[in-house]
Amino acid sequence: MQLMLTSQICVRMPGLATRSLWVSLGAARQAEDRMPIHFAQRMERVAPSAIKELLALGADPSIISFGGGYPDASLFPAAELEQVFRDVIRAPGGAAMQYAPSDGLPRLRAQIADLMVADGTPCRPEDVLILQGSQQGLDFAAKMLVDPGDVIITEDPTFLGALIAFNPSQPRYAAVPMDDQGMRMDALEAALRDNPRARMIYTVPDFQNPTGVTLSLERRHRLIALANAHEVIVLEDTPYRHIRFAGESLPTLKSLDTEGRVIHLGSFSKVLVPGLRIGWAVAAAPLLDKMALLKVASDTQTSTLNMAAASLFLERFDLQAHIATLRHAYRRKKEVMLDAIRQHFPQDVMMTDPAGGLFTWATFPESFDATAFMRDVALPQARVAYVPGATFFPVQEQANHARINYSAQSEDRIRAGIAALGHALRNNR
Amino acid sequence: MQLMLTSQICVRMPGLATRSLWVSLGAARQAEDRMPIHFAQRMERVAPSAIKELLALGADPSIISFGGGYPDASLFPAAELEQVFRDVIRAPGGAAMQYAPSDGLPRLRAQIADLMVADGTPCRPEDVLILQGSQQGLDFAAKMLVDPGDVIITEDPTFLGALIAFNPSQPRYAAVPMDDQGMRMDALEAALRDNPRARMIYTVPDFQNPTGVTLSLERRHRLIALANAHEVIVLEDTPYRHIRFAGESLPTLKSLDTEGRVIHLGSFSKVLVPGLRIGWAVAAAPLLDKMALLKVASDTQTSTLNMAAASLFLERFDLQAHIATLRHAYRRKKEVMLDAIRQHFPQDVMMTDPAGGLFTWATFPESFDATAFMRDVALPQARVAYVPGATFFPVQEQANHARINYSAQSEDRIRAGIAALGHALRNNR
Repeated sequence: MQLMLTSQICVRMPGLATRSLWVSLGAARQAEDRMPIHFAQRMERVAPSAIKELLALGADPSIISFGGGYPDASLFPAAELEQVFRDVIRAPGGAAMQYAPSDGLPRLRAQIADLMVADGTPCRPEDVLILQGSQQGLDFAAKMLVDPGDVIITEDPTFLGALIAFNPSQPRYAAVPMDDQGMRMDALEAALRDNPRARMIYTVPDFQNPTGVTLSLERRHRLIALANAHEVIVLEDTPYRHIRFAGESLPTLKSLDTEGRVIHLGSFSKVLVPGLRIGWAVAAAPLLDKMALLKVASDTQTSTLNMAAASLFLERFDLQAHIATLRHAYRRKKEVMLDAIRQHFPQDVMMTDPAGGLFTWATFPESFDATAFMRDVALPQARVAYVPGATFFPVQEQANHARINYSAQSEDRIRAGIAALGHALRNNR
Repeated sequence: MQLMLTSQICVRMPGLATRSLWVSLGAARQAEDRMPIHFAQRMERVAPSAIKELLALGADPSIISFGGGYPDASLFPAAELEQVFRDVIRAPGGAAMQYAPSDGLPRLRAQIADLMVADGTPCRPEDVLILQGSQQGLDFAAKMLVDPGDVIITEDPTFLGALIAFNPSQPRYAAVPMDDQGMRMDALEAALRDNPRARMIYTVPDFQNPTGVTLSLERRHRLIALANAHEVIVLEDTPYRHIRFAGESLPTLKSLDTEGRVIHLGSFSKVLVPGLRIGWAVAAAPLLDKMALLKVASDTQTSTLNMAAASLFLERFDLQAHIATLRHAYRRKKEVMLDAIRQHFPQDVMMTDPAGGLFTWATFPESFDATAFMRDVALPQARVAYVPGATFFPVQEQANHARINYSAQSEDRIRAGIAALGHALRNNR
């Protein structure tokens, strides 16, 4: 792929999360911008998302954003983290500041194995690989299993960040429709039958991103049986699993795994703090061993300081008690948001009522374009942002959805933002 | 690639850096270990290194290891880091614990741009991408530029970690011989001429890993001219650049770059602490923009806490004064080591005398096998470890070299280890 790049100037929006807006200026800025560059083929699949540019506009502090998946910063255990960072830095020998084993600090791997076992999933310390957030596990799984043109089966819709992580491995996607019990197993079976190059089934079984839906127990068993029958790997992504509002957790897919086919990904981002960037994979040795090699190749190791601090936090403090606080707070926010939606949204907008996690999913009438509405009405008039749903569909976009986050904003701002959005929806149909 | 994996048990060595030793037990442990797994083709290039298993044996604390590239932990600015971590965690709003922009915290990018400018390299904040250590930049550069079968030109020998990072992109290598002025330009020109699929020249111009050699000023200019003429990208890796024992730095290749062809990688691992895992890339927009997309795909962002702490450290403390301390200490260790080598090693062993960095490079007589000597004599008898040189040659291994690190051990252990190694060399020829 030979690209001739034209002169561009980078305009960065305040608070912009990841991407920049490019404005062509016509005249050449520097010679470097006209240099022909031969990029690798995989880069054709690594492109800025239009949606990100739209979301960047929502970073304006005068806009109430339901767009991101941020946890509530007022709930962060700051005093505890201050204490553990102090003590790991003070520890004799400076080990927390030095290089560490690429697989992760052994003590932290053992603690995470204990957390997995407490959650009902058999796990030994050597089954755990520490990652730079569970996002890194998405990258590694695709790298490890997917040749160009191989197929990844996903929920439809699915987590946008997973598609971004998978794309450099140049997969094709088969997207399996969902209902209120999660991925439909008849459609999954058909997708496996129709795609002999399927290598991996990617799922967020608990409080899915973007829909908030949870995969039922019966379907969990069925999914494992189908994966075994078709000899594909299952990638189970569980960032929201412990943010459950009521009742008991369903078993992880990993705990139901009979052939070592499930790669389980976990994360501290939602239950501790995102700024640590600590996630993990749990998998059978033949898979975990390859992922450990990719860890060495990709970034050598996750931050020693952060691993040591997370480990000391788990040793000294009660993570389950902290999670109970989060559950209560996010459940309350979810209820505030759904109450406000019932009060303010038109009757023909359908919302999911998630049993946990950070998101609810709006389905508008089929003629509604949530991307255009955000650009033309929600942002400029209502001063409210969400994530238009189209971006979450890996194969066939559906325009009439939106992902709405309730964890990041205060209850007052949730009420005000939903009221403004409802007003705009009623007056612009 | 269809692999049938036999039953294995993982035996982990104490303090083992990255890899595990596998011992086949004969009987099946679990069904999962016999599952057929279809790995992606690129995984054929992602294999455990035999050398790593040998080095793992050197993790025994009774062995004096000159194997790693660890900085001296007694020189870490622990009190300063304790203070900055405390203050970034305490800052109102909890921003240091929250998600952050994928490109890196804007303040840190501006501070790194200032450091680059102070070092003579033109740089603006928007030219800087924060990475999970500069290792991540090696991964991104290959991903961005290299299709399977494309050629990466390296120094011969070169940094093993770079080969590990490049290999998943399935390159071929062309290795350019070095002399005491660095990569030989006649050989580089021939390699470019002979390899029309050359996409990238990878170099560590300052105090190279593993040889300690520095690329001369004249050759820096020539390298840029050749890269321009052949339209290839230059990947300049500079982890040791500021650990200079005397005199003035030579200009970075990036500062000599006339067409935006140089991707410069920097790191805080050697000048601050490795445990932060903060590195960066400086490159022209067409390249940096693609790397920023790969950052989103790979791990979303580097740790917010670590970026915020590094930024506050740079604001409050004098990094240059700290680097001056490091230069003095490592220069002293290098002299202690070379003095001991002159005293104890046989006369036919040639050592480089590096003007900076962490390593000296031994060349033994051609018949000498440094890998076999380490396994059979250095480890079991002398109780000393180094890195056998064969592993650093990307094309044609040379057995008669060793990389010897002087930064990690105390002066007393340097003297004792070199004396023991010299004794073993004299008595086992």
